[in-house]
Amino acid sequence: MTMIKIGIIGASGYTGGELLRLLSLHLESETVCVTSRKLAGTPVEKVHPHLKGITSLSFEAPSAAEVGERCDLVFTAVPHGTAMEWVPELLEAGSKVVDLSADYRLSKDVFEETYNMKHKAFIEAAFGMPEIHPEVKGADLVANPGCYPTGATLAVAPLAKAGLVERAVFDSKSGISGAGNTPSATSHYPNIAENVQGYKLTTHRHVPEIRQELSRLSPGIKVNFTPHVVPAIRGILTTAHVLVKDEFAGKIPDPVEIAGIYADFYKDAPFVRMANGTPSLGAVRGSNFCDISFEIDGTGDRIVVISAIDNLVKGASGQAIQNMNLMTGLEETTGLWFPGGAP
Amino acid sequence: MTMIKIGIIGASGYTGGELLRLLSLHLESETVCVTSRKLAGTPVEKVHPHLKGITSLSFEAPSAAEVGERCDLVFTAVPHGTAMEWVPELLEAGSKVVDLSADYRLSKDVFEETYNMKHKAFIEAAFGMPEIHPEVKGADLVANPGCYPTGATLAVAPLAKAGLVERAVFDSKSGISGAGNTPSATSHYPNIAENVQGYKLTTHRHVPEIRQELSRLSPGIKVNFTPHVVPAIRGILTTAHVLVKDEFAGKIPDPVEIAGIYADFYKDAPFVRMANGTPSLGAVRGSNFCDISFEIDGTGDRIVVISAIDNLVKGASGQAIQNMNLMTGLEETTGLWFPGGAP
Amino acid sequence: MTMIKIGIIGASGYTGGELLRLLSLHLESETVCVTSRKLAGTPVEKVHPHLKGITSLSFEAPSAAEVGERCDLVFTAVPHGTAMEWVPELLEAGSKVVDLSADYRLSKDVFEETYNMKHKAFIEAAFGMPEIHPEVKGADLVANPGCYPTGATLAVAPLAKAGLVERAVFDSKSGISGAGNTPSATSHYPNIAENVQGYKLTTHRHVPEIRQELSRLSPGIKVNFTPHVVPAIRGILTTAHVLVKDEFAGKIPDPVEIAGIYADFYKDAPFVRMANGTPSLGAVRGSNFCDISFEIDGTGDRIVVISAIDNLVKGASGQAIQNMNLMTGLEETTGLWFPGGAP
Amino acid sequence: MTMIKIGIIGASGYTGGELLRLLSLHLESETVCVTSRKLAGTPVEKVHPHLKGITSLSFEAPSAAEVGERCDLVFTAVPHGTAMEWVPELLEAGSKVVDLSADYRLSKDVFEETYNMKHKAFIEAAFGMPEIHPEVKGADLVANPGCYPTGATLAVAPLAKAGLVERAVFDSKSGISGAGNTPSATSHYPNIAENVQGYKLTTHRHVPEIRQELSRLSPGIKVNFTPHVVPAIRGILTTAHVLVKDEFAGKIPDPVEIAGIYADFYKDAPFVRMANGTPSLGAVRGSNFCDISFEIDGTGDRIVVISAIDNLVKGASGQAIQNMNLMTGLEETTGLWFPGGAP
Repeated sequence: MTMIKIGIIGASGYTGGELLRLLSLHLESETVCVTSRKLAGTPVEKVHPHLKGITSLSFEAPSAAEVGERCDLVFTAVPHGTAMEWVPELLEAGSKVVDLSADYRLSKDVFEETYNMKHKAFIEAAFGMPEIHPEVKGADLVANPGCYPTGATLAVAPLAKAGLVERAVFDSKSGISGAGNTPSATSHYPNIAENVQGYKLTTHRHVPEIRQELSRLSPGIKVNFTPHVVPAIRGILTTAHVLVKDEFAGKIPDPVEIAGIYADFYKDAPFVRMANGTPSLGAVRGSNFCDISFEIDGTGDRIVVISAIDNLVKGASGQAIQNMNLMTGLEETTGLWFPGGAP
Repeated sequence: MTMIKIGIIGASGYTGGELLRLLSLHLESETVCVTSRKLAGTPVEKVHPHLKGITSLSFEAPSAAEVGERCDLVFTAVPHGTAMEWVPELLEAGSKVVDLSADYRLSKDVFEETYNMKHKAFIEAAFGMPEIHPEVKGADLVANPGCYPTGATLAVAPLAKAGLVERAVFDSKSGISGAGNTPSATSHYPNIAENVQGYKLTTHRHVPEIRQELSRLSPGIKVNFTPHVVPAIRGILTTAHVLVKDEFAGKIPDPVEIAGIYADFYKDAPFVRMANGTPSLGAVRGSNFCDISFEIDGTGDRIVVISAIDNLVKGASGQAIQNMNLMTGLEETTGLWFPGGAP
Repeated sequence: MTMIKIGIIGASGYTGGELLRLLSLHLESETVCVTSRKLAGTPVEKVHPHLKGITSLSFEAPSAAEVGERCDLVFTAVPHGTAMEWVPELLEAGSKVVDLSADYRLSKDVFEETYNMKHKAFIEAAFGMPEIHPEVKGADLVANPGCYPTGATLAVAPLAKAGLVERAVFDSKSGISGAGNTPSATSHYPNIAENVQGYKLTTHRHVPEIRQELSRLSPGIKVNFTPHVVPAIRGILTTAHVLVKDEFAGKIPDPVEIAGIYADFYKDAPFVRMANGTPSLGAVRGSNFCDISFEIDGTGDRIVVISAIDNLVKGASGQAIQNMNLMTGLEETTGLWFPGGAP
Repeated sequence: MTMIKIGIIGASGYTGGELLRLLSLHLESETVCVTSRKLAGTPVEKVHPHLKGITSLSFEAPSAAEVGERCDLVFTAVPHGTAMEWVPELLEAGSKVVDLSADYRLSKDVFEETYNMKHKAFIEAAFGMPEIHPEVKGADLVANPGCYPTGATLAVAPLAKAGLVERAVFDSKSGISGAGNTPSATSHYPNIAENVQGYKLTTHRHVPEIRQELSRLSPGIKVNFTPHVVPAIRGILTTAHVLVKDEFAGKIPDPVEIAGIYADFYKDAPFVRMANGTPSLGAVRGSNFCDISFEIDGTGDRIVVISAIDNLVKGASGQAIQNMNLMTGLEETTGLWFPGGAP
């Protein structure tokens, strides 16, 4: 068996570290190159002490062309606006690419409006949510979804496709690791502990991404989204308040039928689990699972759906490896088939 | 000046302890009787170590008649179903009563349906949210609101009264102290830390209370409510997703006008503060304040309102003392005019 | 009654905010001047949202002479090295001063060695731990102790004075607010949550302060100190491993006698409480109490003493007000006689 | 390759769940039997939701003889006193046993005194800390060490063997999962969050175990131990205050020499890492590593050593599998060679 040679652009952050952690469990790949402009020459274990003894790599600062030549597949784990400086050359050099930034998730127009910048190197990419996008299989460039859009879309996609949904109001609660490893007022322990903090209540950049994905399944669907940070390192719990179309008011299918809709939609999705009881972040912590449950409001016009993911795994690096597996012809679950670390 | 003589029925729990803490700062009252059937004879400081040196009271187990005679005002901090066994006799013995249970918050019918039990001693009571219910002033029996209804109602009441609201979807995040001091799976640290847990997603008993209060201000308003527990001891952050009536779609008043609606509605409400920025639990922790902010969605059909309270203070014992002040002719803020304990 | 006019130099940090919170409960003083060079002109409530409605002050940037003239007593809540730039002029202008920095806690020599800087304005000050230093009463300049030295010294002082102690090994666990309100890697939520982090394992600057105080009571006593941060906003729990002198090996006084030593030592100390059971941070949170308990090791040569304080109150701003009370002829407990905010 | 057939007695608790989690990563074994008297017939995923999709086992309630016959190696994850009811029959039936209880860690006498009960079935076992006990290799019965003794012993063993240590004072800070999955006052979120709680300050049952192990390396060594719980689910950070023998006072070997002592002692120990900087729980979370660092006090008579482990992995189930590997002739690291889940 040939090992897939992996590169990681921007490996000093949380998603980079998580890629390294997860790839250490992936027996059909070998990470050969990890880059960081600032930390070139520094052993990875200095930045990621949990990887001491696991990896002996040091950060490098090679050109895109060189990385593309040395690697079969490259993860770009850099900020939006920076990924587009790497991706074309990586592809040109013959590497496949999973981009963890926002640069290739949206149409060019929507990207430029949402991120308020020109796109310098737009290319069509597969949207890296394999449960909805079979075209990931064999793709050369995959745009890995945002953390919030992953939890939100997976929660409501089956109901949207079934044509039930008038409006989905997403109220998400995220651990703080999604904000990265740079200290800020938001991540300052006295500000986040014993608190819940709403932010960008109506204007988060992930809204167009959720809207794009759900609209594909149900044109005209209304989408609202409000994110919060909670005192947790990892995890996103998304509460979707699904308001059904008028024609279904008082006539929502019963729980068994709804369960059937989900079971059918996710019958080939190994990482989506319908939870026994309401999902918990603990049950998915460190794993690539997305746990989902739902409840129908006695008012007859609302379905509450809850999804739980680990934002760094299914919401970022795990999903990226899931995409990698499909892009390279491996089993979708390769290296990812392990449970969360509860308790 | 005569000191108001206070009794507390059921003083061994969190709301009882919080009444004692807050009353130690209330200079125009004297707590003379604290009861607990199980702990009769035990010094309060054994159960509430933080009150050591502050109170020398011991728990007693007197009859309702005796408590009613010894006290000018009694707080009943016992479970629903139990309060109704105390309240009539306390009133008969000449004491005023603030009931912190659910027994007198709802109409008899709604109570019996919601709590699935017969009401053995129904009496009309003032609903103890002074910002909305001026009849608290001088009342003999006040039903202290639930913690969730306090945060939810205060968040949306001004918009409801202004006739803007078609539907309010409340997504609340509560600290665990609301569940009391008895250990349970929900309050078990490994289950709640690093987690957010939705529960009773559509069926929480506080729904009828919120609906009752907002309907008074806006008949026919639609109300949905989903609670969660978060890793926090104290505090409730409520995110209200307010969907406006069709006639206001795309024509929501601008932020200055909405701010005016709130300012006007709460002009005589000392404990409601319009926050600079999004409210935090830290800014209200330990205090009787309710902090509120709002943001209008660019979709033109949703206003997000966030309120923050300390569930044990404005959501329970502090509001109870606020009611006591008004019932007994004191200034509304007596003994409660202090800030939260941030950080 | 004349109100004491208060100034706070450096009021934008945590100890400044805590002084403002506590002084809002202190009915015999009036805070007239709060300074911040960077924030001059900004309302206090912008920086301390919990104080909205409580104070209408704005930050100022006056000269030391002006503050000294406007105030009867000034708290200097600025870093070491900066306090010494304020204190002499404040005193000269006729104000009393409680300095919360390290500038006046140590002898000039020890200060200069410990803080590795020249002392530009040394003056003898009373050491502001009233339980041990009666000379605080009536003093003009009081050096408010460090947070760790407060918890450590109060834990062991009675045993030291009784001549029992060969060596005290202090292992302290502190909430992160002691590190201030500036975000750093240490206070970054993912680094501190679900963690305990030792730091400056043998070299913390508070060591000479603890050694100075315990040596006064027991010359030649050996002192070791290792601090840790724990996932808590407020509070310091200090575990003192007290190794007794050889002559007491196997002959440690029994628990009743030890309890008597503590009771006697602290008989006039209203804020020191011998705890029922092992102290908890919750029981002192937000309050000026120091809770203490002890246990004698069956090995016959060790006594474990545990103390709990709120680092921002008894460990800083509360103790500063306790000192203020004594310096100005008020009752020691004025404005401070309230319990911690458990739960 | 033949798969090792595994049984787990008492698989419904945290250590049982952790064994299942870790064994799902262990490719040379197959878990064939998990028992729980109370839950016989219940699918494992109902109790351990994180294992949904990972295991399809249900709990059983077979006899010891049956388990012993079906399995090559059995983990007994039951309370002390119960393990001894299983172990002899399991061994007799031909299975190897790793006992995670305290029943076989101590000599019969010390066990009976410490646990205040008769030992009904004493057998000599290998003490399951492979870094110190090579006899684990090939053993039939291994007594898996306690969580605290693992962190404490590994921290100080090299110094003890080098003859430097007069006394080791261990101050340990543990996550609450060590107390199991049954809710209690100690694990009640409002009691443990924002707190540090010392308990059994001088009398914890793990003391004899630490003393036994260190005395083997350094007869006469003095050992003290005080445990605390901190707001963390997983992890034990142990601060060892090592007081050196008089002959080394002021003559402690320099840091390079001490580092050499550790490097030499642990040269064949894959799971012990000398940390860059002070160890963090995050760097070992979910993994079988023990991270260690040390610092020499300028007083010349103390060395502070800090160790960090995950109490459920290296402190329980991970070490148990490490032992299993050695008992069955596998590589020591099989199935355990993965990093902690930081952040």
